[in-house]
Amino acid sequence: MTDKRPGQHSPWLLPDAVEELLPPAAAALERLRQASLARCARWGYELVMPPVIEYLEALLSGVAHDLDLQTFKLTDQLSGRMMGVRADITPQAARIDAHQLRREGPVRLCYSGTVLRTRAEGGEGSRNPLQMGAELYGHAGIESDVEVISLMAEVLSAAGVDPLHVDLGHVGIFRGLCNAAGLDSNAEAQLWDALQRKATADIEALLTELDVAEDHHRRLAALAGLSGGTETLEIAREALDGAGEPVESALEALAQTARALQATRPDLTLHFDLGELRGYRYHTGIVFAAYTPGVSGELARGGRYDDIGAVFGRGRPATGFSADLKALLRATVPAADDPAGGVAVAAPWSDDATLRTKVNALRDAGETVIWTLPGHDVAGPGCNRQLVRGNDGSWQIESMNTTGNQ
Amino acid sequence: MTDKRPGQHSPWLLPDAVEELLPPAAAALERLRQASLARCARWGYELVMPPVIEYLEALLSGVAHDLDLQTFKLTDQLSGRMMGVRADITPQAARIDAHQLRREGPVRLCYSGTVLRTRAEGGEGSRNPLQMGAELYGHAGIESDVEVISLMAEVLSAAGVDPLHVDLGHVGIFRGLCNAAGLDSNAEAQLWDALQRKATADIEALLTELDVAEDHHRRLAALAGLSGGTETLEIAREALDGAGEPVESALEALAQTARALQATRPDLTLHFDLGELRGYRYHTGIVFAAYTPGVSGELARGGRYDDIGAVFGRGRPATGFSADLKALLRATVPAADDPAGGVAVAAPWSDDATLRTKVNALRDAGETVIWTLPGHDVAGPGCNRQLVRGNDGSWQIESMNTTGNQ
Repeated sequence: MTDKRPGQHSPWLLPDAVEELLPPAAAALERLRQASLARCARWGYELVMPPVIEYLEALLSGVAHDLDLQTFKLTDQLSGRMMGVRADITPQAARIDAHQLRREGPVRLCYSGTVLRTRAEGGEGSRNPLQMGAELYGHAGIESDVEVISLMAEVLSAAGVDPLHVDLGHVGIFRGLCNAAGLDSNAEAQLWDALQRKATADIEALLTELDVAEDHHRRLAALAGLSGGTETLEIAREALDGAGEPVESALEALAQTARALQATRPDLTLHFDLGELRGYRYHTGIVFAAYTPGVSGELARGGRYDDIGAVFGRGRPATGFSADLKALLRATVPAADDPAGGVAVAAPWSDDATLRTKVNALRDAGETVIWTLPGHDVAGPGCNRQLVRGNDGSWQIESMNTTGNQ
Repeated sequence: MTDKRPGQHSPWLLPDAVEELLPPAAAALERLRQASLARCARWGYELVMPPVIEYLEALLSGVAHDLDLQTFKLTDQLSGRMMGVRADITPQAARIDAHQLRREGPVRLCYSGTVLRTRAEGGEGSRNPLQMGAELYGHAGIESDVEVISLMAEVLSAAGVDPLHVDLGHVGIFRGLCNAAGLDSNAEAQLWDALQRKATADIEALLTELDVAEDHHRRLAALAGLSGGTETLEIAREALDGAGEPVESALEALAQTARALQATRPDLTLHFDLGELRGYRYHTGIVFAAYTPGVSGELARGGRYDDIGAVFGRGRPATGFSADLKALLRATVPAADDPAGGVAVAAPWSDDATLRTKVNALRDAGETVIWTLPGHDVAGPGCNRQLVRGNDGSWQIESMNTTGNQ
């Protein structure tokens, strides 16, 4: 009864927002993981496996300092230094490109691994996502953005996401408008905060309070409303006219990216949101996120984050995407090809050499064969056939009455 | 130059005994991981994915308290309770069998995931192994021990370990001798310590100091020398004659297990070591480890650990094995089938719809195709062919001069 007292927890309950996967969900997640990494490999993305723990300084270098509060801290007994459990693999991949590989030319990396967070993002979701992602270093043009968005779309489509919506934005627009208006970083941060909340009244009040000149005021105030379909870019060109070269370049980059995506993946629904600044401090160019109707929250996201490697001794253009495969699994209907689901073969336990040879051959051919251990009637879950010895001593597969089989 | 001062570390160096895998080693490890899990699946072992962190009480429940000093501790901000980063997945699998699945009959589980340790085992090795293992619950006979040892052998053989040596022991022998001699747990622990060090002089001195009766003294002192080939069991039967039923049962279980293994895997070299008590507190029956000549240290190990689930509300017979896949990768010569090694196809960057279709088809057929991004001469590492447009506008694969390709 003590288990029921308030504040008393069964010691083997998992912490809040920490999940584990049981059969058959774990096998479905593993298939999704393998399929996602296989896609990346076929696009030339090389797998890396950075460690779950690193020195805190390395994990939180440069722009990654935003991850500080999300990062679990540990003391390294060997060195006495602080270590952290990674909350994001992207900065680790950037470290590998900049510091470990040091190659010339484009480098394509992919990864999949557990990350931990002290609190779930936005107060909901998981504290132990299975992050999967792909990053492309060393190329600054829109072609590499198009490549990673296309790869993201292929990974999500292969996972069963259909239809697929992609939101596009560009942090250069907001940043260019702020620079042109002469806002300091404090004012920019306040404005960014209001913009993220789409709080148009707050934005107006703030711009007035900051005494922003009329033209700049008008353009900054317009940003929150600049979202919608492909027509958004035309509307933005008029609404932001005169904002200067950086903003015009950003709009042009978005337009080119959209055209290239429409050519290669006409099935994608593109959406633009010029006031959306996810990962603003982190990113330096195009930002994007993938959604599907009926599922709240993004399925994957990414963007350009040039020069993140500078703290590791080598700034390089960079763009990439990442996803939580556990969230992706929940958002999709897994293909009904669970190999453990009712298609295994039961074998009686025996030293018979002929039987052992038969079992090995079946397994090599891809069958699941489960020994029926002495004292038990059933071999295991999901057997629909069994090995039976014929009159000639050979072993044959027969279908099985599954009544009573667990 | 400051990097060279003693005590100064480049902040992005990894902590001691923490490794990461770069291309192409990471891909080789991933292939080993997938192949190992596929073997387990074909034997009917269902995949589970327990979390990297849990409440400390759950991680260290029961016999797992031995892992305390090896376990990194974290505070859960949400509950204020202590969490730990798992140092071993086996107790998590036992928790899942006992508390989450609660099935009747045999349950076969497998897993693969990172574990962390505050210090490397034995002062060397890795603090972030990639543990892979398989566990069989609900069956107490030697058949399930034979099954997990055979599966371990198959996983290791598939990884390229050849020849394969398996060491067998049984903790019931030492335990039975201590009980018969009436030793208390303190004396037993001292003796265990001396036995692990094979310190025969210490063993003699300790047995004399403890005033152990002559027959018991003789049998306990004999234990350290009882190691060798299959003849060891016969020698042991004589040396331990009169030790009582538990010891005789343990010897008989070892003999039966050895016979069954010789029948199913005659290529295995079996070795017996009756004084070897790895994981002594943890295990309750047969213990085993796998080795190969020329590689120091065990490649995999396991044993019977009945009733570990009792702390989770349900004691069950249990036996299983686990391995560090990173150590296994280092110990074996990977098969020369690295798909990223010099067999990729370079494609010029283009919006051409025919080219995009061709690239998709090649990738679907299993080829790696890498876009050559504008401004770069090479697509990526390992391209030995390229897509070239013919006079009729179709795209064909041509072999490529790889000089200058990275």
